[in-house]
Amino acid sequence: GAQLNPTTTDLPTPSLDHRTLAQKHDLFITSPYSPGSPLLLPNGTYIFEKLQAFLRAQYPIFGFREVITPTIYKKSLWEKSGHWENYAEDMFSVQGRGATGQTEDAQVGQDEEFGLKPMNCPGHCLLFGDATKTYRDLPVRYADFSALHRNEISGALSGLTRVRRFHQDDAHIFCRPDQILEEIEQTLKFVGMVYDTFGLGPYKLLLSTRPDQHFIGTPEEWDQAEEQLKSALNNSGRQWDINPGDGAFYGPKIDIILKDANGKEHQTATIQLDFQLPQRFDLQYQASPEELEANTPQRQGETLDSANRRPVIIHRAIYGSLERFMALLIEHYAGTYPFWLSPRPSIILSVNQDPAVLARVSYLQSFLSGMDHLEPRHSDPENTAPSSSAVPPKLRPRSLFGVHLPIDVDTSARPLGKKLAEARTKKYNHIIVIGPRDVDDEEGRISVELVNQPNIDAVKEVLRKVLGKDIEALE
Amino acid sequence: GAQLNPTTTDLPTPSLDHRTLAQKHDLFITSPYSPGSPLLLPNGTYIFEKLQAFLRAQYPIFGFREVITPTIYKKSLWEKSGHWENYAEDMFSVQGRGATGQTEDAQVGQDEEFGLKPMNCPGHCLLFGDATKTYRDLPVRYADFSALHRNEISGALSGLTRVRRFHQDDAHIFCRPDQILEEIEQTLKFVGMVYDTFGLGPYKLLLSTRPDQHFIGTPEEWDQAEEQLKSALNNSGRQWDINPGDGAFYGPKIDIILKDANGKEHQTATIQLDFQLPQRFDLQYQASPEELEANTPQRQGETLDSANRRPVIIHRAIYGSLERFMALLIEHYAGTYPFWLSPRPSIILSVNQDPAVLARVSYLQSFLSGMDHLEPRHSDPENTAPSSSAVPPKLRPRSLFGVHLPIDVDTSARPLGKKLAEARTKKYNHIIVIGPRDVDDEEGRISVELVNQPNIDAVKEVLRKVLGKDIEALE
Ligand SMILES: [Zn+2]
Ligand SMILES: [Zn+2]
Repeated sequence: GAQLNPTTTDLPTPSLDHRTLAQKHDLFITSPYSPGSPLLLPNGTYIFEKLQAFLRAQYPIFGFREVITPTIYKKSLWEKSGHWENYAEDMFSVQGRGATGQTEDAQVGQDEEFGLKPMNCPGHCLLFGDATKTYRDLPVRYADFSALHRNEISGALSGLTRVRRFHQDDAHIFCRPDQILEEIEQTLKFVGMVYDTFGLGPYKLLLSTRPDQHFIGTPEEWDQAEEQLKSALNNSGRQWDINPGDGAFYGPKIDIILKDANGKEHQTATIQLDFQLPQRFDLQYQASPEELEANTPQRQGETLDSANRRPVIIHRAIYGSLERFMALLIEHYAGTYPFWLSPRPSIILSVNQDPAVLARVSYLQSFLSGMDHLEPRHSDPENTAPSSSAVPPKLRPRSLFGVHLPIDVDTSARPLGKKLAEARTKKYNHIIVIGPRDVDDEEGRISVELVNQPNIDAVKEVLRKVLGKDIEALE
Repeated sequence: GAQLNPTTTDLPTPSLDHRTLAQKHDLFITSPYSPGSPLLLPNGTYIFEKLQAFLRAQYPIFGFREVITPTIYKKSLWEKSGHWENYAEDMFSVQGRGATGQTEDAQVGQDEEFGLKPMNCPGHCLLFGDATKTYRDLPVRYADFSALHRNEISGALSGLTRVRRFHQDDAHIFCRPDQILEEIEQTLKFVGMVYDTFGLGPYKLLLSTRPDQHFIGTPEEWDQAEEQLKSALNNSGRQWDINPGDGAFYGPKIDIILKDANGKEHQTATIQLDFQLPQRFDLQYQASPEELEANTPQRQGETLDSANRRPVIIHRAIYGSLERFMALLIEHYAGTYPFWLSPRPSIILSVNQDPAVLARVSYLQSFLSGMDHLEPRHSDPENTAPSSSAVPPKLRPRSLFGVHLPIDVDTSARPLGKKLAEARTKKYNHIIVIGPRDVDDEEGRISVELVNQPNIDAVKEVLRKVLGKDIEALE
């Protein structure tokens, strides 16, 4: 329990369903107009984008580069990839409403229906295959946060966990067979880094190996690949297990099984090797001198030029579905998020509506949110009189790397007790109370309530510097 | 000409089509498997994401908060919004491949087809309408970078400009009628800030007003709204023009018409008022005391509670389509991007393959890319021997706010002249050449070639500090 959740002292209990917590924090809604496609409100989007930004910040370490790929592809692509057949019931089909009947002089596939993508792999194969690659260009690592659609039956849909539309932190590594070990090692490191950051764990690594009967490629290829997976698992220093014969027919895989605060197991990250897609898309690279020398025998049915080899594809996701990972974190943190992830990091409450108090609140809000260097925005509802006709001063854009925090204020005329209670219910990380004492008395102390902030002294120090005053922490 | 493009001395010429330049810089490809849905390669995605990040950094100034909304909605939603009828030929229809026939005990609309969204507005109306709003909650401003689909005929498709799939920097402002002026003023400021940043312009602002015949609402409502638009245009200090009677039947609008380097006009940003959608979605807010006192007459067919009012919706986009804006910038910069937007900011060339030279190149790359504090990645193709079985040290994650630059290297065995020529063709902003002199001789100077960098001295200073040496700039 407590160990799993070091950032809060509130222990999550089974009653704290992510849907209940999400409602309390205005994270998302659902609509009968698009069952299984949650609509993320600003607070939910804030968390989603922080998760995305965190992963993006790590991509340069691991050599991933992002790509942007289509949402719909013609049926022929899904036939080539095998999804049209193997994924039949799970896919949505798409048709132009204007495109009825057969076009004269049509291009190949012009009148074809499209499929809404359930996976990014075929698109990434198109990108890889577009330009000639040599052994020196590999590994090529494409990452993609695209929205994906899978046609789950409507009865099964629920919150962020059983959905029809979701986003993966999806990536495909196109590598030489001799690069599998290092790529798996790095991916396991990446998984460790991410799960440690969120205080998630322990987790179990599970290797699924070559099925007995039906599989693609030669037993030697599988053996070599599985040896590399085992070495990587050994080198990870983590506990792992084997599920013999449980791999897909197109390659072995490693699943990451996470135990949550309630002891429930979740399959989140996956690392899946694939010998099949490179073949279906006829992907190849110019072999290295060593590979040419080794002169490895071609697979059955392969018609590669003798100077070329097929890459292996590694499908991998660290979070898995971002929506499902969010649901997991919502329950994990029980609504009290770490400061950097929190859509409600701070709120400033005014004790009354004295103009001097309101001015202080407004200054503190703009300072703490990182907006203090900018021209103030006239968001006061009273202040909508036509502006002067003089040319307004040019607005300076904010830097791409500037930190912005969504600092809320409550300057309503309600009693402070009410405002405090509401702010507590909403689980703001910091609650800052500004009263007349702080305004009138140069020696006065600022009343501050801090929630879920392990380092209260550091926060007091920041506030003391901003306000030039001492802090009195409420309990 | 030159004035339009202050960041480069290369004048764009009509021969520099964005598709030609994009190929040279590996920005995107197209595929017959998804005509009109460009596939963005890592370099193109880099530019796309910088454009997105730049706008996101400005959203807090203007009070926009992002939301994430579905890609498909049931036909009934598009009927409610009017798109199913008015946008018929332009929409794609979507069906679950497993969902054939009619379900027994089906929910309303359960067996219905879906429409692939051509616009975000209906989704944002669902979000706005979900919780009760009062006059104090307005304006509510939702921003959304979702992929959108419109079924253009295949003959018209081309590059990034005529597409079926694109992303808008879309936003909807839900405001009170008396808030129109300030919202339009702020939006015009936002447009100015963005276009100034890219050195785009001059541009023309064009107001389209109430059509003579067919329009929604009362002439008084239109007059009040148009007065506010005119005041905002006057206060902007920019040149503007009027197109009388050219507004849509549901509201007046302001178009931004940009003149490019070749004198060609582009309609990029739009600001469109909408009196209709709030009615179709029955959106309302609890009126202010002033509004209740004014007791404005209800529109024909309105059945609002007397204590409530309808908000106005402002549809606005600053870039317009990100894809089209990218195409415009590609031609505007003629392939030589400002440093912050450039997918090829710097390359380091080695004069030879001396291990000391290679080590220096590698150090400089990791330093300049912002990765020097991290454990080095073993990307050397020779270095794939199994690691030791000791538990590896934990990797520190990079900060969300850390700057990362994609610094390339060319350490191939080719002659320096060849490498330089290739780097110049690829239009790297900085070309840095590392030779034995820089390694062996403590007094040696680093050879540096700098392209498109107005402040060469500042760059030399940075490099001098990193390398602890003087810089010799190649010409
Ligand atoms: Zn995949
Ligand atoms: Zn709209």
